[in-house]
Amino acid sequence: MISLQDCKSRDAADTLAPLRQLFNLPQGMIYLDGNSLGALPSAVPHRVAQVVADQWGRDLIGSWNTAGWFDLPRRVGDRIAPLIGAGAGEVVATDTTSVNLYKVLSAAINLVEQAEAEHAEGQVRATRRTIVSERSNFPTDLYIAEALCRERGWNLRLIEPHEVHTNLGPEVGVLMLTHVNYRSGAMHDMPGITAAAHAAGVLAIWDLCHSAGAVPVELTKSDADFAVGCGYKYLNGGPGAPAFAWVHPRHVARCWQPLAGWWGHARPFAFTPGYEPAMDITRYQCGTQPIISLSALDCALDVFTEADKLGGMPALRTKSLALTDLFIELVETYCPGQFELVTPREHALRGSQVCLTPASSLPAGCAYAIVQALIARGIVGDYRAGDAQQSDILRFGFTPLYLSYENVAMAVQGLQEVLNDREYAQPRFNRKHAVT
Amino acid sequence: MISLQDCKSRDAADTLAPLRQLFNLPQGMIYLDGNSLGALPSAVPHRVAQVVADQWGRDLIGSWNTAGWFDLPRRVGDRIAPLIGAGAGEVVATDTTSVNLYKVLSAAINLVEQAEAEHAEGQVRATRRTIVSERSNFPTDLYIAEALCRERGWNLRLIEPHEVHTNLGPEVGVLMLTHVNYRSGAMHDMPGITAAAHAAGVLAIWDLCHSAGAVPVELTKSDADFAVGCGYKYLNGGPGAPAFAWVHPRHVARCWQPLAGWWGHARPFAFTPGYEPAMDITRYQCGTQPIISLSALDCALDVFTEADKLGGMPALRTKSLALTDLFIELVETYCPGQFELVTPREHALRGSQVCLTPASSLPAGCAYAIVQALIARGIVGDYRAGDAQQSDILRFGFTPLYLSYENVAMAVQGLQEVLNDREYAQPRFNRKHAVT
Repeated sequence: MISLQDCKSRDAADTLAPLRQLFNLPQGMIYLDGNSLGALPSAVPHRVAQVVADQWGRDLIGSWNTAGWFDLPRRVGDRIAPLIGAGAGEVVATDTTSVNLYKVLSAAINLVEQAEAEHAEGQVRATRRTIVSERSNFPTDLYIAEALCRERGWNLRLIEPHEVHTNLGPEVGVLMLTHVNYRSGAMHDMPGITAAAHAAGVLAIWDLCHSAGAVPVELTKSDADFAVGCGYKYLNGGPGAPAFAWVHPRHVARCWQPLAGWWGHARPFAFTPGYEPAMDITRYQCGTQPIISLSALDCALDVFTEADKLGGMPALRTKSLALTDLFIELVETYCPGQFELVTPREHALRGSQVCLTPASSLPAGCAYAIVQALIARGIVGDYRAGDAQQSDILRFGFTPLYLSYENVAMAVQGLQEVLNDREYAQPRFNRKHAVT
Repeated sequence: MISLQDCKSRDAADTLAPLRQLFNLPQGMIYLDGNSLGALPSAVPHRVAQVVADQWGRDLIGSWNTAGWFDLPRRVGDRIAPLIGAGAGEVVATDTTSVNLYKVLSAAINLVEQAEAEHAEGQVRATRRTIVSERSNFPTDLYIAEALCRERGWNLRLIEPHEVHTNLGPEVGVLMLTHVNYRSGAMHDMPGITAAAHAAGVLAIWDLCHSAGAVPVELTKSDADFAVGCGYKYLNGGPGAPAFAWVHPRHVARCWQPLAGWWGHARPFAFTPGYEPAMDITRYQCGTQPIISLSALDCALDVFTEADKLGGMPALRTKSLALTDLFIELVETYCPGQFELVTPREHALRGSQVCLTPASSLPAGCAYAIVQALIARGIVGDYRAGDAQQSDILRFGFTPLYLSYENVAMAVQGLQEVLNDREYAQPRFNRKHAVT
């Protein structure tokens, strides 16, 4: 049995432990929800105050040049790039994940239709008109795909995660997957699936919302086509921080995306009526960006610069797996038979979160109340409701940047107490809606 | 001749003068660029610090509920509504102007095509497939229209401002205009043009970027169909603050917009795969919003709550016209024959800015250098380059919330000195690019 002392010893030996000092975390809280909203990096309040008081308040309009506001989406993109295996000048931090997905999915559709038109020497042959995605993908991804299918006369086919390889037929143009599932924490084999898609003539779009900053991602090595991701989860950019978009350099100047605003223009300050898209990732920008929120994300990425000195994403991944392994082991030891593990146990098949579903020995519908009882104890995870296909789940995110082995042990001890004392049965832990 | 003492007397009698105390303006600066980036309201730094430290840092994920982050776009929208003559629940503060224009223009196209399909009882008759806009509209509006025309098989026709009434033929589906022109400051007759559009069976979309907070706008009374606008100009929401969208209630549930992300879903927390748009303006939301930037805008709108106690938009308009009239009169008095007025002189035909173009008596291409020389003196206006159709201009925005009559007098005195001393001829005032 692993003791609390064992966990403390592991913390003492943890070379990443100093990174926790880079965050302001509430005293006494064990925060296992960084997969939903990352914690506040300590440097951010000062940076934000500076942007507000000095850049906006004092320098006003001059800051577009002197503070580099106009280039900020590309500069922040360049800082995200190494975390996702992309090159400099290939990523832009802008807009929201949903909006960016609309851009890259539109571009992918344009690319497919264009290639077919060229192949048929001007005569369009409508062959590949299907987008394949996962039924349990984060809903907004499916909504955006549905919208584009409606606009463009394509079809959206929803499949189970294990059905990808058998759904890459000649009618499929685009495969759109989320690398790490928001609900289960299951991770797809990005290089393998991308290779299979390409072998079948299908473009691969990856949503990295639950991967960027959480697991090593190799977009270039995987030869992916397009990617989008989130700034406010494992990148700790703050609530609703701008998202990001990446396009493989082989496609970037070859196809067009319809959110063609002035920030994506080749010469935005020429103020000419005709749209000329920039020849690089800049064309995936659209309108003026929320500079205060974007600056918070920029500052938050300093944490990864520090993490790089201690081994970077590979070291973070090693610790993430150690934390999640420990959590699983402790739950199985101290809460035996009370939960089923929803997240795959195998390392290669999961991200940085662990999801549990209450076993049938526990009262039906108790998942929400257990999460609330844990939160009341300062152990913050979250809850996702089930439906006909899926069970209710308890979701725990493990951010190696600020979590310790002791935190994990204390979280499981709290869980054990909530179960033993039937705290979840208290009326104050009533169900209400939850936020991703 | 108007003396500086006259101006000081007018300031002493100005009931809106106390509003200036609600802004942090740099000592000694006369800021005539609030039409590009509004000044910093004094209350914003504290609010932003609170959002960062308390809502994000301390309450973390719980703030989605406790701080009302999820409803913030609608709450801020409700505060913008009275400034633009819209009702509660009709406006949403979200995304960027370009992205919002894509939404409402898509919706308008859908509405036109839908009405024709219904009229023909299922048989689509492609009659109205033209969008009419102004050649000198802000370019991003034209780029977005161009993009949608490309996607949807429509045409974009660009006209001069005086040609609107003769361009509302049976082939036109949508008229898309910016109420106050970003360059000239000229203002369209919103009620008259909307009525003419409707009489011709054409939908009217209004871009309020240079109107909201600057001039009284009456969307409902004008019977407009759709509107978008900017949060960071006269609303003072900070650099790149989220924009807004309004849809007339008669249309809102009747047509669909393709940026159909989860924040526009009728039940976003059901996490179901099929998209069901909300039945109100919520459907014009898409993805998770930048809460820090949106909170700054929310706080900035407190200034208008204070202004309401002193007469609100009508009083602000009266002062704005008095300031701009004074500016024009002083320029014509103290810099006689050196500029031509680009902005219409008639009150009903202009917004809250004044644009000048150097007369032929001044050296060719001196407009940029004059603006730079003024900035060096702490008089901040901006410059817009001309082209084959348009002259170079000096652009001055007059925000009655924080400008005094004395400011206007001192600005013109500065302009006179720049001209008399030929300061604009100094090499340090070299041309480089400018930002809207």
